[in-house]
Amino acid sequence: MAQFINKKEDTVIEAIDGTIRASGGALARLDGYPHIRVVVRNDWDKSKVALVSGGGSGHEPAHAGFVGEGMLTAAVCGDVFASPSVDAVLAGILAVTGPSGCLLIVKNYTGDRLNFGLAAERARAFGLKVNMVIVDDDIALPDLPQPRGVAGTLFVHKIAGAMAESGASLDDVTKAAERVIAGTKSIGMSLDTCTVPGSPKENRIATGMAELGLGIHGEAGVQQVEYVGAKQAMTAVTEKLLAVMENKPHVALLNNLGGASMLEMSILANELAQSPIAKNLKLIVGPAAMMTSLDMRGFSVSVYPLSAEDHALLSAPCEPSAWPKCHSVKAVTTIELPDGLTPIRPMASDDPEMRAFLTQCCQILIEEEGDLNALDAKSGDGDTGSTLAGAARALIAALDRLPLADHTQLYRAIGQELSQTMGGSSGVLLAIFFTAAGDAASSGLSMVGALKEGLNRMQQIGGAQLGDRTMVDALKPALDELETGIAGAAVAARKGADHTATIVQAKAGRAAYINAEQLQGHNDPGAEAVARLFEKLS
Amino acid sequence: MAQFINKKEDTVIEAIDGTIRASGGALARLDGYPHIRVVVRNDWDKSKVALVSGGGSGHEPAHAGFVGEGMLTAAVCGDVFASPSVDAVLAGILAVTGPSGCLLIVKNYTGDRLNFGLAAERARAFGLKVNMVIVDDDIALPDLPQPRGVAGTLFVHKIAGAMAESGASLDDVTKAAERVIAGTKSIGMSLDTCTVPGSPKENRIATGMAELGLGIHGEAGVQQVEYVGAKQAMTAVTEKLLAVMENKPHVALLNNLGGASMLEMSILANELAQSPIAKNLKLIVGPAAMMTSLDMRGFSVSVYPLSAEDHALLSAPCEPSAWPKCHSVKAVTTIELPDGLTPIRPMASDDPEMRAFLTQCCQILIEEEGDLNALDAKSGDGDTGSTLAGAARALIAALDRLPLADHTQLYRAIGQELSQTMGGSSGVLLAIFFTAAGDAASSGLSMVGALKEGLNRMQQIGGAQLGDRTMVDALKPALDELETGIAGAAVAARKGADHTATIVQAKAGRAAYINAEQLQGHNDPGAEAVARLFEKLS
Repeated sequence: MAQFINKKEDTVIEAIDGTIRASGGALARLDGYPHIRVVVRNDWDKSKVALVSGGGSGHEPAHAGFVGEGMLTAAVCGDVFASPSVDAVLAGILAVTGPSGCLLIVKNYTGDRLNFGLAAERARAFGLKVNMVIVDDDIALPDLPQPRGVAGTLFVHKIAGAMAESGASLDDVTKAAERVIAGTKSIGMSLDTCTVPGSPKENRIATGMAELGLGIHGEAGVQQVEYVGAKQAMTAVTEKLLAVMENKPHVALLNNLGGASMLEMSILANELAQSPIAKNLKLIVGPAAMMTSLDMRGFSVSVYPLSAEDHALLSAPCEPSAWPKCHSVKAVTTIELPDGLTPIRPMASDDPEMRAFLTQCCQILIEEEGDLNALDAKSGDGDTGSTLAGAARALIAALDRLPLADHTQLYRAIGQELSQTMGGSSGVLLAIFFTAAGDAASSGLSMVGALKEGLNRMQQIGGAQLGDRTMVDALKPALDELETGIAGAAVAARKGADHTATIVQAKAGRAAYINAEQLQGHNDPGAEAVARLFEKLS
Repeated sequence: MAQFINKKEDTVIEAIDGTIRASGGALARLDGYPHIRVVVRNDWDKSKVALVSGGGSGHEPAHAGFVGEGMLTAAVCGDVFASPSVDAVLAGILAVTGPSGCLLIVKNYTGDRLNFGLAAERARAFGLKVNMVIVDDDIALPDLPQPRGVAGTLFVHKIAGAMAESGASLDDVTKAAERVIAGTKSIGMSLDTCTVPGSPKENRIATGMAELGLGIHGEAGVQQVEYVGAKQAMTAVTEKLLAVMENKPHVALLNNLGGASMLEMSILANELAQSPIAKNLKLIVGPAAMMTSLDMRGFSVSVYPLSAEDHALLSAPCEPSAWPKCHSVKAVTTIELPDGLTPIRPMASDDPEMRAFLTQCCQILIEEEGDLNALDAKSGDGDTGSTLAGAARALIAALDRLPLADHTQLYRAIGQELSQTMGGSSGVLLAIFFTAAGDAASSGLSMVGALKEGLNRMQQIGGAQLGDRTMVDALKPALDELETGIAGAAVAARKGADHTATIVQAKAGRAAYINAEQLQGHNDPGAEAVARLFEKLS
């Protein structure tokens, strides 16, 4: 699958430079490209304990994205999924370590252990105080003597980072990191493999299956399991965690391995909060992409027992925006629906003249059903007549419950009826027309003025202007003439409707998607309906 | 492709509940499931202007993820890629609107315009002040009269949100939103289509092609273009923007459409900062997934002219962590590499006794090359003998430049030589052994004590314990006996090496991956090398 990269060998340095350019000056890098790729805090004065992490690339935002006040001091970046060299790590250590010393936070992979380890030895030969901790939070294989380091590493970065920022000594920061490592457990699941830049994608996971207990380098999970859905996936993952968790409050980190959508991650968060470990989850970090495996459609959950001290350190402000804050896990608060969703139906009232007028309007539309459908069939799906006739029939049936004697309320009531009985965009648009007209009438506008205001609002919301080949082309001129009498309005409506036959570049409504040949010579059926209504009324 | 969802029809409500559960109590929802899906600020007192947005789901974190202090007051969520109902929007408006009124921020899609529009009319009938703005930032088709609303909507949310939070009036907030909408332009590109939950994926984009000018609902882009790489992709996108941008400072929002990896997004950020529009980019939001199209492997860039006032509003603190902060776009700051990467070579010195001893050690390892290779071939790749002999030959060749008379410096110098001449993990581990021993010797430990400390460090970093079937099984007992003389050390080393033949459950090193039958009865070649060295020396 194609990816947004350039030359494969430039992938890591370009990603680092992008991260630095978008950091607002918070980050810088050592001048050692292409072999030495070290991202450092640009505001670092070496007065506190330095935290250096890193490893292979492909885990973004880890690790460069977590460099900044309150988290890492430097990140040493290897090639995709490959450890950085001893020289690169040493350069990172030497660049940031002052009299307070330096803690190396290393994920448990042989290459990282050895290269960071030897770099630490070399740095010590310069008289620097350098400690090193090895994160091994993966519980995929419970009896493996060398568990991998995965997303739980973020707990170490954040807690040790907050301590170092507060001025703690190297020994205390190291002890805190060791405490976090001892308590952190992680496990992940994926529905697909990842795509290593420049390499073909391996299709290892069959449809209907998922891999459980995977690392962050595309290696196979320890088992393939049947995949049923998000709930079962989260249950499988959290049951593994439950087996090794103490019965006390924990923080959970919900990590996107890179390719799960935000929608999916939110669903997984919902499941996590109701999972077998839910009763001991007090705090959640994420869901967010923190320790990815390129574009892997998967997730991991890391848990760590939550003391008051660690709660404070996890919640302490920090600069890197890749750290997504942590929040208490809470039940869903629901708020009662507001009153007013079922509109108060105005008191029905009669007015024989209005009843006769509305009935006449409706009957005209019912009579024109066939003609308007036929016209619509020439440029659309042939249902304009039926849509209007159906609404007209429903309105006639509703006359007895309408406030016929209260014209202001009547507009709104008609709008309400139309929005319930008339489908499609036109139903909503006519509902807006009558509701807005009612609104205007209640502010004291004349009936015609109110209808004009309704049209304005309908145009504003629907987006149709005069000349766009819609019902507006007949309705607007008709309303503009209506104060002079219904006859003048009818003439104006007819002229407007006939003009639509010459408009072949429709700009709003469905006709915008129809080509010119199909439109030429045919009136717009909505405009034609308006014209016929006014003509027959006059 | 399988996704982390449960029942298709529960997708949106489960995602909303997950977002609320992970919000730490900042969010709540109206009690209107399944049809009314409205997320609201849980701390809202209606004293300020309310901002309501929403639309179809599938754009997460938009819109629920942007509800919170300083941004939206409520988000009304439709089904995936479908507008919410009029009732749902009305419920949202009624729930959050107080005397200061409410601004609806609506993306320019017919369904959203109509449903939000009619809901606004209904809310006004309750006497509420409701304004509505329509975001139409897409420039994919420059002459389209109804451009779509896409990721530029985030500028509106943030700027209007900061104004509302500061207590501005509805009119002023509306004017600000209209100003932002008038100035915002967006365009996107994708390498693949998105996967709508419950629907098969459409494979519309051929390998080697990309779609330029796409919406956020999986609809096809206005053109398919050849895809060459990240630079050309960003150039194509920014050239479209350049054609419609004024020559003044802008802010850019770099949006992940959902399926691009963090690595790719960083590379795209790097390209954006060097693109045809770079000279006018002062501020960047992202890269981050803000307005997604489910899992689409694509990105969009939105730009907006940057006044001092808008800069302040964009930078104002806000609660939603989905807003990724904005940062100045800066050139990459590079910091000079630290001194010390090329270690200062200690002054060479001679000591005939030490020269003879080291030469003897090296010659023993050279003599054993064949035997050790043969032993290694039984459980590995048969190169232990050659690896050690090669290092021994190189060390003999280096004798003239070693500080033979300064034993403390000598350990470190040997470590340095080994790290340069001996490949693989064993080279790094022995380098750590000698470097740490030198470190210990310089702190005043005896030579034997220093070697023991070197072993400790090597074990700590390499992870091998006694009994793990490595060279440690011979080296550790030998060093423990070394103070009693070389003969006792040789006996101990032999005993340890022979014991390794009974260890079939290797826990460290390469043998951990070999099955028991291949190990049974064969000494570990590293341990055997140590034993033979001590035996021949004694």
